[in-house]
Amino acid sequence: MSQSSAYSDFLKLWGIVTDLEHGSAVLQWDQETRMPAKGAAARGRILATVAGIRHDKMVSAELCDAWNKAIDSVEADSLEAAQLAKAKMLIDREVKIPAELAVALAEAESAGLHAWQHARAESDFAKFQKELEQLVKLNREKASALAGAGRPYDALLDLYEEGSTEADLVPMFAELGDVLAPMIKAVGASKPVDESPAQGHFDPAAQKAYCKMIAAQMGYDFEAGRLDKTTHPFCTTFGQGDVRITWRWQENDIRPAMYGVMHEAGHGLYEQGLPSEWARTPLWAASGLGMHESQSRMWENMVGRSEAFWHWAMPHFHIAFPDKADVTPEQMFPALNTCKPSLIRVEADEATYNLHVAVRFEVERQLFAGGVNVAELPELWDQTYENLLGVRAESISDGVLQDIHWAMGAFGYFPTYTIGNLVCAQLFEQARKDLGDLDSQLAVGEFDPLLQWLRSNVHQHGRRYSTKEMVQMATGKPLSAQPLLSHLTALAERVYGVSIPV
Amino acid sequence: MSQSSAYSDFLKLWGIVTDLEHGSAVLQWDQETRMPAKGAAARGRILATVAGIRHDKMVSAELCDAWNKAIDSVEADSLEAAQLAKAKMLIDREVKIPAELAVALAEAESAGLHAWQHARAESDFAKFQKELEQLVKLNREKASALAGAGRPYDALLDLYEEGSTEADLVPMFAELGDVLAPMIKAVGASKPVDESPAQGHFDPAAQKAYCKMIAAQMGYDFEAGRLDKTTHPFCTTFGQGDVRITWRWQENDIRPAMYGVMHEAGHGLYEQGLPSEWARTPLWAASGLGMHESQSRMWENMVGRSEAFWHWAMPHFHIAFPDKADVTPEQMFPALNTCKPSLIRVEADEATYNLHVAVRFEVERQLFAGGVNVAELPELWDQTYENLLGVRAESISDGVLQDIHWAMGAFGYFPTYTIGNLVCAQLFEQARKDLGDLDSQLAVGEFDPLLQWLRSNVHQHGRRYSTKEMVQMATGKPLSAQPLLSHLTALAERVYGVSIPV
Repeated sequence: MSQSSAYSDFLKLWGIVTDLEHGSAVLQWDQETRMPAKGAAARGRILATVAGIRHDKMVSAELCDAWNKAIDSVEADSLEAAQLAKAKMLIDREVKIPAELAVALAEAESAGLHAWQHARAESDFAKFQKELEQLVKLNREKASALAGAGRPYDALLDLYEEGSTEADLVPMFAELGDVLAPMIKAVGASKPVDESPAQGHFDPAAQKAYCKMIAAQMGYDFEAGRLDKTTHPFCTTFGQGDVRITWRWQENDIRPAMYGVMHEAGHGLYEQGLPSEWARTPLWAASGLGMHESQSRMWENMVGRSEAFWHWAMPHFHIAFPDKADVTPEQMFPALNTCKPSLIRVEADEATYNLHVAVRFEVERQLFAGGVNVAELPELWDQTYENLLGVRAESISDGVLQDIHWAMGAFGYFPTYTIGNLVCAQLFEQARKDLGDLDSQLAVGEFDPLLQWLRSNVHQHGRRYSTKEMVQMATGKPLSAQPLLSHLTALAERVYGVSIPV
Repeated sequence: MSQSSAYSDFLKLWGIVTDLEHGSAVLQWDQETRMPAKGAAARGRILATVAGIRHDKMVSAELCDAWNKAIDSVEADSLEAAQLAKAKMLIDREVKIPAELAVALAEAESAGLHAWQHARAESDFAKFQKELEQLVKLNREKASALAGAGRPYDALLDLYEEGSTEADLVPMFAELGDVLAPMIKAVGASKPVDESPAQGHFDPAAQKAYCKMIAAQMGYDFEAGRLDKTTHPFCTTFGQGDVRITWRWQENDIRPAMYGVMHEAGHGLYEQGLPSEWARTPLWAASGLGMHESQSRMWENMVGRSEAFWHWAMPHFHIAFPDKADVTPEQMFPALNTCKPSLIRVEADEATYNLHVAVRFEVERQLFAGGVNVAELPELWDQTYENLLGVRAESISDGVLQDIHWAMGAFGYFPTYTIGNLVCAQLFEQARKDLGDLDSQLAVGEFDPLLQWLRSNVHQHGRRYSTKEMVQMATGKPLSAQPLLSHLTALAERVYGVSIPV
């Protein structure tokens, strides 16, 4: 058998697995955006069936044989070898999870999502507790199956960011906390900024048009995507040419919609920028979620909250919201870069955001260490918020029910948000060096140079390299918290006049 | 192995096949209602992958073994035996179609749908010709594979209406033509009716609210369904609790939207009324498409175009469209029951509708007899329209490109529309006898007695019986064209004053 034939036989089988994953993504998107309430049970079964088939295909002797033949036919250190290595890693991971567990997880995720939506809408944890208990139970089984002799929670962390461990994350959050805790305290003692430029009345239809215009200017291709309303914004990929984002809005504040859309469009740009010639192969996917988050955060925070960006955006803002026709970029800037403890992660400022993540990391660690049961989570959540941010939710919808992740069965996911913030700051620092006067480009809406920098340093690699490897390649340095801390302390100094040594 | 265990093992495997079918239906619905243009190729591959897996499951030794064990464990003439008999019929059919052909068909259908949408929008047959040629070629292969020693076109007809043959349909269309052709001619010589009560300006949002209100009053459950816009209206089922309908509208005429929605909601009521305890079993589906069409046509024509119905609907119509506040049911009735040759099947009146179907039957017969190639279809279509209806399309979008069916790979489907009209008239005649004063019920919006009559005579049986069997059971007589012809000639007499012997 010729080299190309064995390799392409393997890719053909792999394409089937990819198709099932993308098909499931469509079913899930529909579940969240369009499905009528009574369709939930049937949808759960369909998703479970597809998950079971995907699992069977991944662990099949046919795929294993094809891999064995293909690996003998490719050059070491070639792209083909990298494709096969990634496939092997994913197959090995899958083999560790029994088929019944995979099906049970898919069912529990559909049930969980549905229950969470109700529980959140009605601020009633009891409506979600049973489903969450099942999700935790099954994810403990999954973690143990994946970890073998290792630590279960690390096995879950590794799913979302390769090589990420609890032992590494504890000092990372400590390093951030050492700077951010006193900084947030100092900011809290300063004069609050005027947030009125971002507040008022914003017509939802005008918000949608304005946000879509910004996403399109960023380079998000609406002919290969779309924007829909959901409870919790997300980005999802159904294959080459179909990468969708979702949003939500508040009528009295432009920030949730605008920065939600810029965030998700940032994710979308990454997915739309994956090399099309790799479609349906093992490497046709984004790298770890930390890298993914770096892309969304860069467009949301580094670009969208900069004063330079607002020199371009402001005329559009004035047209979309005539009530706001007298706001200047200089007035808008502080309102977008406030720093204060809050309850909702997705609407938190850049600095405290990392403490929101630290809360979840702390709660998950305890949950997977086994010392906590699900019934205790609401209080543990609120208490940890009080410890780290000094605030306590009045409604459980703003407490332990605020995030979709656990309802989707995603445990070990949250830390990738802060890893993403680190990566974002370090990559943006480098992009700024490489691109010359980036602020002048942003100020006239020229976002393409930055996008092309990301395409060539990140997107074009698919998941060939880990997040840490790509950071090293792009910046010449290992991943570090320093660029993020420099950025955040500089903001605090400019907006609040507080000076914190990094 | 106990009886129930072997039987339930079989149903478990069958449920997987059902889930894949419903999953594909979601992917197709999204493809038509939501998918961005560039997602078409990837979506086609996903659908082909799922179709291939479904096919493999249907013809698998595992399913065959399970069936053999199950059949030995059930009582003859039981419900379980009926379930297994239906499964066997479907499996045998599937076995005849090679896997490569099933995958190629799924790919050709996705490509065809996409090409047809473009070709129709641009009135350019060339943009669809290549895809249609592929669809015809593959469907000829499919027909031959299914027919064995029989006639290929009959094998396709049988897919959509069990036991339907070209030899039976030719005299059926002749019987209809013998009455309808002189009737339509006589009507054409009479004074045209005033259609202005149904024409004017109708705000799309008001149309939507008004049509949804009617569908809800009919009993269509929006918590187990939804209404979306598509090029061509349809109804699709994703399992228990999720049966969706689609619509389109014209701003200058209420009829396309209103009767499109009543039609699709009629289909939806059938699907929503299938016995929930049979979900994911072989019998949990509607019977042949003729029976399906009888349900949609009954709500659209027998109910929605009756004067009695408008005594209930008119106040709602006045509120939705204040410009029309002086229209009476008596004025509206003739505008809804016109009879004149037209170009668009889905907007045709009840009488000429059957001639539209006859055109398609005639074109398909020739196409599958092999004497015609795809490039000749536009002219054959136009010529047949001229022969049967005396009209010729000015734009190819109103000619051979008007229907979605061939683009979806559905050949042999059209005759079920006229079979449905026959069934509809015969069932409605019986319902009228059984329900007492049906007109008084319709006149106050009491649609539930009719719905319950349909539930118990049709919906509750799933696909346990054929259309012809259910007609016999419900009416005590074999299916006949006479009730339809009586209905149509009575309408022509009332609206146009022409008298035609049946």
